[in-house]
Amino acid sequence: MKRDLHILDVTLRDGSHSMKHAFTEEQVRQVAKGLDQAGVEYFEVSHGDGLGGSSLQYGLSNVNELKLIEAAAEEAKRAKISVLLLPGIGIQEDLENAVKAGAKMVRVATHVTEADVAKQHIQLGRHLGLKTVGFLMMAHMAPVEKLVEQAKLFESYGAEMIYVTDSAGALLPHEVKERIQALKQSISVDIGFHGHNNLSLAMANTMAAVEAGATYIDGSLRCLGAGSGNTQTEVMVAVFDRLNYKTGVDLYPIMDVANHVVAKFMPRPQEITGSSLIMGYSGVYSSFLLFTEDAAKKFGVDERDILVELGRMRAVGGQEDLIYDVARELANRKHSVI
Amino acid sequence: MKRDLHILDVTLRDGSHSMKHAFTEEQVRQVAKGLDQAGVEYFEVSHGDGLGGSSLQYGLSNVNELKLIEAAAEEAKRAKISVLLLPGIGIQEDLENAVKAGAKMVRVATHVTEADVAKQHIQLGRHLGLKTVGFLMMAHMAPVEKLVEQAKLFESYGAEMIYVTDSAGALLPHEVKERIQALKQSISVDIGFHGHNNLSLAMANTMAAVEAGATYIDGSLRCLGAGSGNTQTEVMVAVFDRLNYKTGVDLYPIMDVANHVVAKFMPRPQEITGSSLIMGYSGVYSSFLLFTEDAAKKFGVDERDILVELGRMRAVGGQEDLIYDVARELANRKHSVI
Repeated sequence: MKRDLHILDVTLRDGSHSMKHAFTEEQVRQVAKGLDQAGVEYFEVSHGDGLGGSSLQYGLSNVNELKLIEAAAEEAKRAKISVLLLPGIGIQEDLENAVKAGAKMVRVATHVTEADVAKQHIQLGRHLGLKTVGFLMMAHMAPVEKLVEQAKLFESYGAEMIYVTDSAGALLPHEVKERIQALKQSISVDIGFHGHNNLSLAMANTMAAVEAGATYIDGSLRCLGAGSGNTQTEVMVAVFDRLNYKTGVDLYPIMDVANHVVAKFMPRPQEITGSSLIMGYSGVYSSFLLFTEDAAKKFGVDERDILVELGRMRAVGGQEDLIYDVARELANRKHSVI
Repeated sequence: MKRDLHILDVTLRDGSHSMKHAFTEEQVRQVAKGLDQAGVEYFEVSHGDGLGGSSLQYGLSNVNELKLIEAAAEEAKRAKISVLLLPGIGIQEDLENAVKAGAKMVRVATHVTEADVAKQHIQLGRHLGLKTVGFLMMAHMAPVEKLVEQAKLFESYGAEMIYVTDSAGALLPHEVKERIQALKQSISVDIGFHGHNNLSLAMANTMAAVEAGATYIDGSLRCLGAGSGNTQTEVMVAVFDRLNYKTGVDLYPIMDVANHVVAKFMPRPQEITGSSLIMGYSGVYSSFLLFTEDAAKKFGVDERDILVELGRMRAVGGQEDLIYDVARELANRKHSVI
């Protein structure tokens, strides 16, 4: 099968966030089987925060992800299974176990400015014979040159593909385009794009990425995923068919698994709500939301103002203290104006 | 207030479809007040199928639309109220009554190839002192030259603005762009765009329209509208703010009416489901869906195949008999292959 575009479905990984990490083995089997039969080439199975993510901090999985990977691998006759690995969360043993369970691809994910923490993980992926990918998250937070520099680092470690990952759904189509174009000119491995729909632009951004040269694109069925969800896999299949790209995925079977399997168990629809919109608008990640709500109450300011200010400051995970500083500062400003 | 872009909210008209025409006066007042306070310039209030649409065929309204227009007009301190009028459904008296109730704009809507039925309605709108708009529905069904010809007809009748209306959510961004560009070169009145989200491209199409020269754009709160819903108004405000266009609409208040008013009463979320996706993919309108389901059962074929075939044939409303012919033909083909 000659494919112009490679669709990678992340329902069983990014969707884990929306499912509060409570996927059952039966759900995983049904989705895996459906994806496989529809002709999807790769799909990802892991805790939402990657291998080893099951924890009090990131959310406990109901079923051990290795068991889920194994179940998915049994159902996948043609499709290959990817796993996500965040250095600092997943360890070497997790990846080795995932390979035993049937994984064929690993995506090593770091913040867009921190590829350097992933050297040994990329090397491990290659050593284990996996298709090994560098996955640059929160890509909107770095200028284009920085993104290129980090992609080159990944490539130098042995990554066979680099993903631009719009974790907060904050990129606009022209921003996606310039990032993918810059990579296209600077690295020689394949380029992928992973979008979120916080600004209702996941599909548009994916199209912009493809126009600029990306050949791997992520989606999830019925958008099931973090924030306001991912690019909708079955819609992507329809749109790229209309645009005459060969994805190798059949429209009706992929619609069927979306609408007759995933839609039945998803806990709520993936709409663009207040908090997911402001995430995309301000460019901050979801881990800030709860703290921000608390700080907003404590200091009597609008939580959206805090998030927008954090976005302006390019705050990143780990800087949660900043949230309270920002709230205090906004409250002071407000009172001094009155 | 200098606006680069004029947002027209259709929650209280296109949303009527999703609400099964059961808007209450209190809901209309709350939405109208919220839109007005957020700085929205125009919003539309009518039965989903326009003035006079309340009927067994199109769905009976729970509350008379004139009462709803009146209520909305009372709440709108700055915003102006638009009504939709489909020749053949609404009559002269309906429009005159709407004006008495407070309407300031009329959008006269016809199938993309049938502007000629609307001459007297456009003239009536002008005569009544309304801002009068020609609204070309199912715009994907005509080649660009035909669309231009029809827009010119509307202009010749006295329309002060022409809308390209992607009723089935079937247009791709480059198709929107070429249509708006062609109008820009051929007519001298303002150009608007009305999008639907069946292919997850409503926002992208709206951006493409604006890039090509449209200055009026439709949206609805939380996407409430026919099919998989409209371009999401509050998201549009955020996106065009990021793109440095002045819409005159304030982000937080528009988010508040979306999330604290509309989200509370909408009967179901506006997701892209099986039937709405196939509508966008095949380019057929929602009125075919029920008949197609029936014909598919009767002839034992996939309803999606029927819709795709109808799309290819450019079938339009009124040709419901065709549905059964197509189903029969597909069933014959299927059996002759076996």
